[in-house]
Amino acid sequence: MRITRAFVSGCCCLFAVFALAIGRMAPIAPIAPIPDVRQYVKTHQAEILQEFRELLSIPNVASDSVNIRRNADRLKQMMASRGINARLIEGDGPPVVFGELSAPGAKRTIALYAHYDGQPVDPSKWDRDPFNPTLRDTTRGAEGAINPFPRAGDRVDPEWRLFARSASDDKAPIVAMLRALDALKSSGRPLTANLKFFFEGEEEAGSPHLEKLVRQNRGLLGAEVWICADGPVHQTRRQSLYFGCRGVVSAAITVYGADRTLHSGHYGNWAPNPAMRIAKLLASMKDEHGRVLIEGFYDDAEPLGELEKNAIQEMPPIEPALMQEYGLAQVDGGGRSLAELITEPSLNVDGLRSEYVGSEARTVIPAEATASIDMRLVKGIEPDRQLARLIAHIKKQGYMVTAEQPGREMRLKYPLIARVTSSHGYRASRTRMDLPIAQQLIQAVEQATGQRPILMPMLGGSGPLSIFDAVTGLPQIGVPIVNHDNNQHSSNENLRLQNLWDGIEVFAAIMTMSDKL
Amino acid sequence: MRITRAFVSGCCCLFAVFALAIGRMAPIAPIAPIPDVRQYVKTHQAEILQEFRELLSIPNVASDSVNIRRNADRLKQMMASRGINARLIEGDGPPVVFGELSAPGAKRTIALYAHYDGQPVDPSKWDRDPFNPTLRDTTRGAEGAINPFPRAGDRVDPEWRLFARSASDDKAPIVAMLRALDALKSSGRPLTANLKFFFEGEEEAGSPHLEKLVRQNRGLLGAEVWICADGPVHQTRRQSLYFGCRGVVSAAITVYGADRTLHSGHYGNWAPNPAMRIAKLLASMKDEHGRVLIEGFYDDAEPLGELEKNAIQEMPPIEPALMQEYGLAQVDGGGRSLAELITEPSLNVDGLRSEYVGSEARTVIPAEATASIDMRLVKGIEPDRQLARLIAHIKKQGYMVTAEQPGREMRLKYPLIARVTSSHGYRASRTRMDLPIAQQLIQAVEQATGQRPILMPMLGGSGPLSIFDAVTGLPQIGVPIVNHDNNQHSSNENLRLQNLWDGIEVFAAIMTMSDKL
Repeated sequence: MRITRAFVSGCCCLFAVFALAIGRMAPIAPIAPIPDVRQYVKTHQAEILQEFRELLSIPNVASDSVNIRRNADRLKQMMASRGINARLIEGDGPPVVFGELSAPGAKRTIALYAHYDGQPVDPSKWDRDPFNPTLRDTTRGAEGAINPFPRAGDRVDPEWRLFARSASDDKAPIVAMLRALDALKSSGRPLTANLKFFFEGEEEAGSPHLEKLVRQNRGLLGAEVWICADGPVHQTRRQSLYFGCRGVVSAAITVYGADRTLHSGHYGNWAPNPAMRIAKLLASMKDEHGRVLIEGFYDDAEPLGELEKNAIQEMPPIEPALMQEYGLAQVDGGGRSLAELITEPSLNVDGLRSEYVGSEARTVIPAEATASIDMRLVKGIEPDRQLARLIAHIKKQGYMVTAEQPGREMRLKYPLIARVTSSHGYRASRTRMDLPIAQQLIQAVEQATGQRPILMPMLGGSGPLSIFDAVTGLPQIGVPIVNHDNNQHSSNENLRLQNLWDGIEVFAAIMTMSDKL
Repeated sequence: MRITRAFVSGCCCLFAVFALAIGRMAPIAPIAPIPDVRQYVKTHQAEILQEFRELLSIPNVASDSVNIRRNADRLKQMMASRGINARLIEGDGPPVVFGELSAPGAKRTIALYAHYDGQPVDPSKWDRDPFNPTLRDTTRGAEGAINPFPRAGDRVDPEWRLFARSASDDKAPIVAMLRALDALKSSGRPLTANLKFFFEGEEEAGSPHLEKLVRQNRGLLGAEVWICADGPVHQTRRQSLYFGCRGVVSAAITVYGADRTLHSGHYGNWAPNPAMRIAKLLASMKDEHGRVLIEGFYDDAEPLGELEKNAIQEMPPIEPALMQEYGLAQVDGGGRSLAELITEPSLNVDGLRSEYVGSEARTVIPAEATASIDMRLVKGIEPDRQLARLIAHIKKQGYMVTAEQPGREMRLKYPLIARVTSSHGYRASRTRMDLPIAQQLIQAVEQATGQRPILMPMLGGSGPLSIFDAVTGLPQIGVPIVNHDNNQHSSNENLRLQNLWDGIEVFAAIMTMSDKL
């Protein structure tokens, strides 16, 4: 899951705060998990960790084509050894590792998505080599004392953590799925669905070739549901499920002054300043409460259903804790919950750039100023249409809008010129929470974990789910398993072992879930 | 004179346009120059260029302390050989080369300022080594065919140019002053004033130690007028004089959101965006016509006198040509002339910075956003007072203003925080154009050049004049001599030879000017 470095490292300290939030919630009667799976995990911890360690030892940055292929080959082999019909699907980027496993007599097919590539690493910022996994006792400090990996039969403290790139994001779910199969086999429990596995190799690079590959292999990808095993569980550590992602379309807006920087003394008060122009243009886009003023911006958004609204109501409140953690005395949105606000479209300034600031500043009138913005989309809003609304708004402020660098003729003709370039953009995805398969999955997870999962109608972010939705139109549900404080994307990425053990149980439950409610 | 690279290179192509402007002006009856000085120049061109070439061969970046001192020593020697009582004044930076020359019977003292350091060079952007001067015929192209330096008695095309760092900025005036002395001596014409020479060695580095040094040596620096020989003549090539500079105070304003960048999907619509905040804050500072909305911003400005207003009226119009040159379809200031607008205080955004834009952009809510601004000041406005007005304005928008990076406690207490840091700032300078010494100088220049000079009540920019004004309170007048299209601060800096020949005549006229009108 593509999340920024800072976001993730920011989650590290939240647990203490959320412990309080948990305390406030009504106690939930534990429901029996699958005892034989839990038993399998208990007795195979050393073996599971050993296999995981080997997988993590293979560097997995998407652009490192040699090692990415080593990862793919290893995964194919790990799958084949479990009786999965595995193969590599080649596209224009790293291969997808695809596998099929038939369940005799099963009437349904469940597809499981994860990715095996990881974020680039800056080894100088890691305590240890990111591709030489270490097992650490972090209960007394963030870095943690390094412990040897356990020997066969040994058990380890579930609060210990495994440190390596992709220990959480996103190799952990892959290992959990395969070990769920082992556990089920060992206990003689049959799968209730045929399974498809789809392990992507360039998610952290933005999945540039995924859509094409999914389109080309559409015939292979039929399933009753796609499970996306990416992202962390809720900050309260409760298992969560998400039923969609916002879409996104990004744009860069550049406005112009003179065709070169000018001396602010010799021309100040006379030559127009593009940095001031971009400020005024951006300021026109939102009111003081963060409400977008672009005409029609909220039109077309499909309203949430009752189930989604209730799910949001039921989510544990995290806003006061987040404000405390992030040092915020005030937030946008007029007091509405974060969970509710991220179900609406948004407009966000990603960055601003014009000449230099601070000690690098020169006393000049800049020649141009650029703002990059992203617009998150919800179900019903087309990326191109939202972009057209943005452009109409810019025109309404008096700008001539162009996609190209303006030439001399254009500059001499139009007082205000804005160059707008945009990304391809993709739609939001949202799966109805009242679909039978969704309800069955919720029930299975609840049984496995002994707690009603936190149900998120959608993630605020955007991810590969949207691409699958756009191409296949099949329901998708996100099933994250890793700890939220995993330093995902950052240095010292890690996985809390209990999350892996729980994850195995969750996937075992999904693979054996009932088609009854 | 500190001017941006882009500004200067921008001037290069203006001559053709201004040729038209010249054509429109009423013809002025030539007034006789000093014939013997002109004759001296004609017969000593080779010698003058040889001495200049040697001076330009010594690298002169202020931070290159070894070579800067070589420059200072060479200048001292050049001055001593002309009977000037020369010495180095040591301060915390490169030495000032100071000289005194008494004129028997003279009742007045004139002090002449120039600087011998130059802008840093990027040799890869020069056609030739910037410290190996070349003489070129640029009449058929910008680069120009390289010609040998003339031999004794040879004369060269006055449109040829001398290429080297500081050929214009600012060693040319130094050579012109010293050669003016030679010419006067050769013709037996006595000086009418005692002279002081003050050649600074770190003007291009921002004169960080000048004020202290001027204060410490105040007793030495008395004069009836300080002549600042820096900057180019008007774009029409007419000799110009300036009577002041705007002051300046700069500030960097940083506003904050969360204490780290946040994922725009997960937190968009909820976490405040500092890039949007800085946009709204800047937008509040100016109206659509460029008028500053900060309360009291224009108060305290001493109005121009009749002489200054008339001088502005008489300046040749350059706005249409500038708009054409810089690709501007519209300018600020409601149709008033550039010359008039730069006599008012201004607020300019120097730069903007928040996270990344364009291809580097990430979909995040930035943690902070910074704008650097400069405020140009006119006579009567105190830097600190103007800064206080800016801060009051920011507070009025709801911000808590601090000079430090906000800590956790402050962030949790105040919804809006702006960190404002500022430069020391200095006042504007303005010398009354009706002072007898000013009128005598105008008259002398008019006689030397055969044309009424263009009189600029003040430069829009700021320069060392302000420092002298602040410390000595003595009248200052700027006498630029170099061509405007000299690539000052940029690569391929050059001097049009006719400007040097004219400059020698101008300085000879000043050194022998009458105290009558």
